[in-house]
Amino acid sequence: MRTLIDQTHLPALARGCAVLGAGGGGDLHVGQLMARQAIEEHAPVPLVDLDELPADGLVMVMGAIGTPIVGSEKMENGQEGARLRARLEQLWGRQVVALMGVEIGGWNGMLPVTWGARMGLPVLDADGTGRAFPESQMATMYLAGVPAGPAVLTDERGNLIEFRVVSDLWLERLARAAAVELGGSAAMAAYNLTVAQARTATVLGTVSLALRIGTALERAGSDPVDALVRTVDAFRLVTGKVLDVDRRTAKGFMRGSVVIEGLGEDSDRLLRLEIQNEYLVALERGEALASVPDNIAVVDSSTADAISTEQIRYGQRVTVIAFPSTPVWRTPRGLETVGPHAFGYDFDYVPVEERLGGYSGGSSLKARPRSTPRRRFQR
Amino acid sequence: MRTLIDQTHLPALARGCAVLGAGGGGDLHVGQLMARQAIEEHAPVPLVDLDELPADGLVMVMGAIGTPIVGSEKMENGQEGARLRARLEQLWGRQVVALMGVEIGGWNGMLPVTWGARMGLPVLDADGTGRAFPESQMATMYLAGVPAGPAVLTDERGNLIEFRVVSDLWLERLARAAAVELGGSAAMAAYNLTVAQARTATVLGTVSLALRIGTALERAGSDPVDALVRTVDAFRLVTGKVLDVDRRTAKGFMRGSVVIEGLGEDSDRLLRLEIQNEYLVALERGEALASVPDNIAVVDSSTADAISTEQIRYGQRVTVIAFPSTPVWRTPRGLETVGPHAFGYDFDYVPVEERLGGYSGGSSLKARPRSTPRRRFQR
Repeated sequence: MRTLIDQTHLPALARGCAVLGAGGGGDLHVGQLMARQAIEEHAPVPLVDLDELPADGLVMVMGAIGTPIVGSEKMENGQEGARLRARLEQLWGRQVVALMGVEIGGWNGMLPVTWGARMGLPVLDADGTGRAFPESQMATMYLAGVPAGPAVLTDERGNLIEFRVVSDLWLERLARAAAVELGGSAAMAAYNLTVAQARTATVLGTVSLALRIGTALERAGSDPVDALVRTVDAFRLVTGKVLDVDRRTAKGFMRGSVVIEGLGEDSDRLLRLEIQNEYLVALERGEALASVPDNIAVVDSSTADAISTEQIRYGQRVTVIAFPSTPVWRTPRGLETVGPHAFGYDFDYVPVEERLGGYSGGSSLKARPRSTPRRRFQR
Repeated sequence: MRTLIDQTHLPALARGCAVLGAGGGGDLHVGQLMARQAIEEHAPVPLVDLDELPADGLVMVMGAIGTPIVGSEKMENGQEGARLRARLEQLWGRQVVALMGVEIGGWNGMLPVTWGARMGLPVLDADGTGRAFPESQMATMYLAGVPAGPAVLTDERGNLIEFRVVSDLWLERLARAAAVELGGSAAMAAYNLTVAQARTATVLGTVSLALRIGTALERAGSDPVDALVRTVDAFRLVTGKVLDVDRRTAKGFMRGSVVIEGLGEDSDRLLRLEIQNEYLVALERGEALASVPDNIAVVDSSTADAISTEQIRYGQRVTVIAFPSTPVWRTPRGLETVGPHAFGYDFDYVPVEERLGGYSGGSSLKARPRSTPRRRFQR
């Protein structure tokens, strides 16, 4: 057991999940309160490695699906996890031995702790994305060929829907339509897998990573942004203030954009972030500085706390950073699933360290105006 | 066995289902072609009574859900019924012994014959509405307290969705959202019941009734409309031509209205029909002449063939008739489920024979303008 997660870990875990969420994955204020209540009412939650679990045990892969901002107001009633677990155990004919979040980012990174406390189940130190992505097939289990179904979805009322689908994209469509009909969000277990399968189909160590990031922020001293940049090997894209937010909820997603105006040595610069639940792309003068699958985080310039796509608003003083994605997303099949083209962009992915690293001389940097020196993108 | 339904019965069955469908239930041209092909490729289909079936056998209650007009273009692939049956037998742990249409109206009244031929199953001489209604909880099984779920829904691709719901209205919402996402229509088995349950939870004899109506039309001679009116105890509302059709498909329903201009002795009259998949209400000068749950049919003035809400168009010469609904819909709980208020109207239901029968002197007739004499509503 790596850690016994108790109340004292939650602030760091929440801060880490926020940074890894690329702005999405759901509200961590509510998420942290829910985890705290569950641990207080039940027990701390063991964080475990695959080696500690029986190879044929079932890992329940769970998370919220829908529009993140809805989850802030539409609460769970606490029975969702037990209902999904009971049904999965019937369907698989085997015991659930651990929970894993479909993504470590945002609320979805903390939900396994909440459910684990309620159900007396450990949380696997892994997830299915290494960050947060807006669509359900954007998961390493999909890349590994783990079947998406039978997937089970439920709500706070007690409705239960099972999906057996001919392709993973059908699960995304059907489950999202159900979430919309249920009020904008729902709880789902999909891509459930055995411990043996989890070994090659997940991103390992991401709960520990979130805790490490949060702990680094807690201990950061006078320059939290600098501490964060060093912890996740990030590049600073801009430091400034939020000038404009365009945000709407449609068809089960939040979509929109944010414009950030540079301040200080970044004055005269404008950065535009495009959103589908998560920050997908950072554009300057029409050119991508960073993009999916690399992780773009907008953090408070004084505390380095990550600001989600539903919390961001006019006037906030922020620093935008980007850091490399989990390697599997940079493979051809990974990029096909979550690269810029998968989101409708017509440019090719360039790894953030190639584009912004001082050593690389990437073409996009050459094309950028001379008034924006490279040193602004130093780690 | 009442009848062995073969190709020769299909034209009459189709005409009867069209009349009983109140304009809805789906396209009978396609429906009849499908039934013909299934019988030719497999075998005729026994039409059976409850007494011929084992009391603990499972009756699969099936139909299409979605926007009727979509079904005319989005074909089944032929495996839907077998897929639903296999899953139901797993879930119930008992054999399906017969099929029953959720409604006798339109395509949904012929679909059990098609599926019965393919699967070698008899069709029960009964249905769940005695007509067609737009929403899934508008069924006599709902009135009788038969659980809606587990309900199983599938499409021509092979996706399979199961619903366990906390209320029947949630099935309607979730299944319709799924049908919309699957392209506008899907096949569903819900309110499945045992033979014993079917005895008090269905409308018995409706397949025979549809055949009887169709046969009467085939033998009608020179005045088919008159033959139809006598067969179903109908009242003529107006004879005229279609002046205007306003029709749109939204959120899994067809909605709209039709205006019919009287001809001959009905000249100077305008009748407006309001639609939600089916013809719900017939209005003249803002007052209801007939309404749900009574059955409103628009028939070709020369052939008496019923014209569905998706087929109706400008210029057609039509006669609008109305006839009494199955008695169970006229009970307080029946009217709560399918009366005018259930569709958002603020007037109370008046049985068609009270409103339009010469003997009744119903208040609405008194309120109608003198220029519209009662004899126009004779049977």
